[in-house]
Amino acid sequence: MKHLLVTFLLLSLTFPLLAVDGKWTPQQVLELDAKWLAELGLELPPSRLWDPSRGTGLLAAAISTGGCSAGWISATGLFITNHHCIFGVLQEHATPENDIITNGFLARSMDAELRSRTMRVTIPRRFVDVTAEVLASVPAKAGDAERYLTITRKENEIVARCEAQPNTRCRVAAHDGGVQYVLQEMAEIADVRLVYAPQRAVGEFGGEVDNWMWPRHTGDFAIARAYVDGKPYAPEFYFPLASSGVKPGDFVMALGYPGVTFRSLTAIEMDERRMFFTARAAVYRDWIGTMESATADNPAGTIAVANLLKTLLNRQKNGEGQLAGLRRGSILEKQTAADRAVLEWAAGRSDRRAAVAAHEGLTKLANEKKEWFEHDFLLEHLRWIGTGAPTGPRALVLAIPIARGAEQRAKADNLREAPFMDRNLPRLRETLNREQKNLFTPVDRLLLADFVRRARALPDGRKIEAIERAFAGADSDAALLERIDSMFASTRLFDEAERLKMFDEPADQLRARKDPLIELAAGLSRQLDSMAERTHRWNGTVLRLRPEWRRAVIAHAGKPIAPDGNGTLRVTFAHVRGYQPRDGVWYTPQTTLAGVVEKHTGEEPFDVPDSILKAAADRDAAHPSRWADAALKDLPVNFLADADTTSGNSGSPVVNGRGELVGVNFDRVWENVANDFGYNPDIARNVTADVRYMLWILEEIERADELLRELGIEAKKQP
Amino acid sequence: MKHLLVTFLLLSLTFPLLAVDGKWTPQQVLELDAKWLAELGLELPPSRLWDPSRGTGLLAAAISTGGCSAGWISATGLFITNHHCIFGVLQEHATPENDIITNGFLARSMDAELRSRTMRVTIPRRFVDVTAEVLASVPAKAGDAERYLTITRKENEIVARCEAQPNTRCRVAAHDGGVQYVLQEMAEIADVRLVYAPQRAVGEFGGEVDNWMWPRHTGDFAIARAYVDGKPYAPEFYFPLASSGVKPGDFVMALGYPGVTFRSLTAIEMDERRMFFTARAAVYRDWIGTMESATADNPAGTIAVANLLKTLLNRQKNGEGQLAGLRRGSILEKQTAADRAVLEWAAGRSDRRAAVAAHEGLTKLANEKKEWFEHDFLLEHLRWIGTGAPTGPRALVLAIPIARGAEQRAKADNLREAPFMDRNLPRLRETLNREQKNLFTPVDRLLLADFVRRARALPDGRKIEAIERAFAGADSDAALLERIDSMFASTRLFDEAERLKMFDEPADQLRARKDPLIELAAGLSRQLDSMAERTHRWNGTVLRLRPEWRRAVIAHAGKPIAPDGNGTLRVTFAHVRGYQPRDGVWYTPQTTLAGVVEKHTGEEPFDVPDSILKAAADRDAAHPSRWADAALKDLPVNFLADADTTSGNSGSPVVNGRGELVGVNFDRVWENVANDFGYNPDIARNVTADVRYMLWILEEIERADELLRELGIEAKKQP
Repeated sequence: MKHLLVTFLLLSLTFPLLAVDGKWTPQQVLELDAKWLAELGLELPPSRLWDPSRGTGLLAAAISTGGCSAGWISATGLFITNHHCIFGVLQEHATPENDIITNGFLARSMDAELRSRTMRVTIPRRFVDVTAEVLASVPAKAGDAERYLTITRKENEIVARCEAQPNTRCRVAAHDGGVQYVLQEMAEIADVRLVYAPQRAVGEFGGEVDNWMWPRHTGDFAIARAYVDGKPYAPEFYFPLASSGVKPGDFVMALGYPGVTFRSLTAIEMDERRMFFTARAAVYRDWIGTMESATADNPAGTIAVANLLKTLLNRQKNGEGQLAGLRRGSILEKQTAADRAVLEWAAGRSDRRAAVAAHEGLTKLANEKKEWFEHDFLLEHLRWIGTGAPTGPRALVLAIPIARGAEQRAKADNLREAPFMDRNLPRLRETLNREQKNLFTPVDRLLLADFVRRARALPDGRKIEAIERAFAGADSDAALLERIDSMFASTRLFDEAERLKMFDEPADQLRARKDPLIELAAGLSRQLDSMAERTHRWNGTVLRLRPEWRRAVIAHAGKPIAPDGNGTLRVTFAHVRGYQPRDGVWYTPQTTLAGVVEKHTGEEPFDVPDSILKAAADRDAAHPSRWADAALKDLPVNFLADADTTSGNSGSPVVNGRGELVGVNFDRVWENVANDFGYNPDIARNVTADVRYMLWILEEIERADELLRELGIEAKKQP
Repeated sequence: MKHLLVTFLLLSLTFPLLAVDGKWTPQQVLELDAKWLAELGLELPPSRLWDPSRGTGLLAAAISTGGCSAGWISATGLFITNHHCIFGVLQEHATPENDIITNGFLARSMDAELRSRTMRVTIPRRFVDVTAEVLASVPAKAGDAERYLTITRKENEIVARCEAQPNTRCRVAAHDGGVQYVLQEMAEIADVRLVYAPQRAVGEFGGEVDNWMWPRHTGDFAIARAYVDGKPYAPEFYFPLASSGVKPGDFVMALGYPGVTFRSLTAIEMDERRMFFTARAAVYRDWIGTMESATADNPAGTIAVANLLKTLLNRQKNGEGQLAGLRRGSILEKQTAADRAVLEWAAGRSDRRAAVAAHEGLTKLANEKKEWFEHDFLLEHLRWIGTGAPTGPRALVLAIPIARGAEQRAKADNLREAPFMDRNLPRLRETLNREQKNLFTPVDRLLLADFVRRARALPDGRKIEAIERAFAGADSDAALLERIDSMFASTRLFDEAERLKMFDEPADQLRARKDPLIELAAGLSRQLDSMAERTHRWNGTVLRLRPEWRRAVIAHAGKPIAPDGNGTLRVTFAHVRGYQPRDGVWYTPQTTLAGVVEKHTGEEPFDVPDSILKAAADRDAAHPSRWADAALKDLPVNFLADADTTSGNSGSPVVNGRGELVGVNFDRVWENVANDFGYNPDIARNVTADVRYMLWILEEIERADELLRELGIEAKKQP
């Protein structure tokens, strides 16, 4: 009978257990049923999470490092985030003599903290609904491109007004394509100092092998401190460390700044996005193969392509995961059914005719995008969005900002594309300089050849003219490579000094060089212009149609729906919970120090530091560490929960129902990559580093008594 | 609270749950506490399992196919075993036109059954304790070699007397090195006919990839029928099919004929066996590497070495598993402690002095064996035990039976080694013939060179003289290969016709050939003789010391202890139960049809037949198959239990507490390979094909209504 019960309960774990999808905005938390939140496990009143009158609350203790999330953990400006989020600061200060990347870092006093030259954090100050103001700016008869440009201008205007305040970063966030526009007013702190980072072998334990995987044993945490006017910043809200830890079934919240997700798309739009992941998986597989085989016996080449290769491998793996997840979760099929339900409901209501029309319009747009998909997919690999290089062939990627930059710099600063604005030019120049180390022409000629072959295989009407012109006549593979080699032989682009010189030259001087790659890039720049025009129109169409459609979806649901992630502050409600990755296997939701030791091979990425091995071997069942988990009978290391997270959630504080920190989110599981399209309670799992692992290391390995005291941890009683 | 309970119970599953090690002999079942057996879940009185007065009982429904186990499942001579156990019968009857290996086979009437030319089954008839008779044969002052040879002769005499009865196969089994000698009297049935085998893609689903793995999805079952005098055999006992299936926690018994295990060894003897698995893992890794790289671009070579390569890969993987299991289970450390406990207990008792001395003697013997270990390990690769070829270099393996055969044939038949007895010579000859297809000299020269290098690296006093002589002077690697190539150039051994001619030649005619490989083999034959003499002495030492020691171990335990597996009938009591293979992962104990489909890739070994895919897709939650499991909500395929099994348990009937068949055992899990040295309740798991999977296929795919009726399954109500 006991067995029966166990079985039943074991199996029941594979079924939804109060699973709740949704990356809720702070405002939305107050629209949710407080009783239901209490049932989930929230012990605080929702008003503690957010006070709309002041536009702040406990949620505001979740801050952003720009790309990563983080959370205040003391009244003295200490915040916690991921080791991988703070890695750049380690790089800034690491030297061969003091290799803090490898050895980790602990400041035993404030004086010893390491100030970052680059890291800034932003803190939510106030969120204001500016929907009316934004929409009022659009002329009544505006075309779609005009609509997009007008709204963008309006947003920029609101941001500029907001940023006129000192130390303030602002942004107008459009939720779900414009259902709501919210001005995000954030205080910015530029003085960030590293307090603690574990050894790399702890912070990156498992490396690429374990990336996206469970079971996981990574100490992906780090602590820094923010200063204002040279004094520790005193946040109004912070998350005290929970000494009680978590156990399976416990309620947790993950707070942070999730990036772009796709759940508000219609099924056919999702299908268009599927094309994107399909292409990534297939094209990158080829490029990766080319890079690997062409550098197999060449150590210098291997080093040169390592960066790009890692990026492509990561995206290819992600692409495969998205596709597998879409299939496994039947996500498109479910979205098709969901769309149909809303359409049928709307069809019967005269006040929802516009929604039906909007859906039709979005479908038409998705079909147009599909037609352009392969063309745009290629060109996107040459388009500079920020000051980081895109992932196309280096020969084109390096030539574009020179050719295009000369044109753009001829315009007024506020009419240029972002990377070419005066304030960004120095960083763009720096990238062009730095890219020299990633250059390996024996690989790049092959990647360029592949790129050209793909471009020439595009259907008529979708060809890339500049490519057609530059490679006309070079029809065989051999002829194509010959043409590329001849371009490579005569270009000065690969000469670092010459490249930077070209970057500063005005357009006519540059064109007078007749450099074949610059010529080609100038042609491609025309194509980028027309792609941009088309994109502006498409964006305007979405801004016109999406809100209408989403309003119908929300009205049909009859309850709050969380908008797609867009880098703004969100909270997700979850429970600690394992899952079934495949038939016959159950992933239990917590890992332990025993598992760390079990994985130890002595070689990266499974090289457990001696200090940890020794402390693990010295564990005494009779006198366990105070951070050991009673049920696990061991030190907890990582845990799974069904939080609704995505990429920007790296470093998200994970807190219990009382708002106490139980860990730091650092990953999602492989089966859950397609979560960006739809939440599947069976497999939606995020991975959190248990704060008790950090406390154990700080106490038993680092003896960081001062830091622990500051974190509110009383000194251990001496045995 | 619900979560808490779940967690607790989930974790509790990782702790022993009435786990019971022991491969019990039928007689021992009656010595076990009947109340305890009932608590485990046995619903039948133990007397139903075995009646000592008649020497039979329900356990006798477990029969042997010679190598595999099997079980009667009808009063009409039907028995069930593994697909892989009946594979030879499929090979006998498969033709290109009627490829029953690939397509499977179902006899829709008795006429259609396929009679095997080779398969026989043996049925327990009577087990008699012959310990007194055997021991009485040993002269009082016999040396160890004499003791061994006398006992062997006595056993042969008892067997001959027993086999004088018609259709009878007998064997004297020594339990735990002679604590007890039991005459196993078995009835033999030579008329075995194939009734049902699934498609290969079902019966071997997962192939080598899934071998030893969980989760598992293999339909490794088959049905045959035994005939006596042309009529279906009517066994007194059989296992009716359980239509209720199993669920986690259920009591099950696995019955069968487990092979050799090592649990009665002392710790130091186990350590000597560890050397064996260490050597297998290391040496075979090298040989596998040589074979793979030397045939990488050679399809003919790849085919030629495939057989040997598969065997070596299998043994190497097994070796690694044994070593990992010994480490993980701290088995030697535990055995050392167990030995010490018995020694301390015995030291205080005057009547156990002999046990202490026996332990000392076994330790001395183990140390002597260790000294000879590397020498004997190499020579064992040339020693023919049966008529299957050993796994050393073909050049030596093929030459040995020719050179040694000529010597052995000069002796009286009953003084020869088994492979060279008249009754075995035709099969040995056939093997020598068949081995031609496994011959690929470009690989064999490298394997021989490696063998010679290892032999020459043996310490002084342990060198293999014949090797030293044959390769004297060829000291560099190049010179060694040159010597081998010159031998290969002049030998006639690789000519199939010539080889068979040599095999028939008398010794002097053969030696007159001066064939270099035959010369070498004749020398090696001397070394085999001296190894055999040494082994006889060692065996005699064990026969003298082990019983004394084991009696002390048993007395110290104060309860029945199951003897090591030795190919005789045993039963193990178990429960259906998952396990934790590593931190953060729990293997649930049952797999389902959904998992079969999940693994489908369309390519071997994961190519699910269309008929199964279709039936799986047609599953209807509202109208599930009657063989679906209510808790799993799907068809069960395989299950785990903590039965104490080993290699000969392939095909073991797995029955519930009422003696009804719930499945057929076909594997152990990887973590449990070292189970042969000691039972670890946390990971000791066997893998069983659920009988409901077979019933579903027979009913839904094969529409084998007649066979199902014969198996006592009532026709399904038509929907």
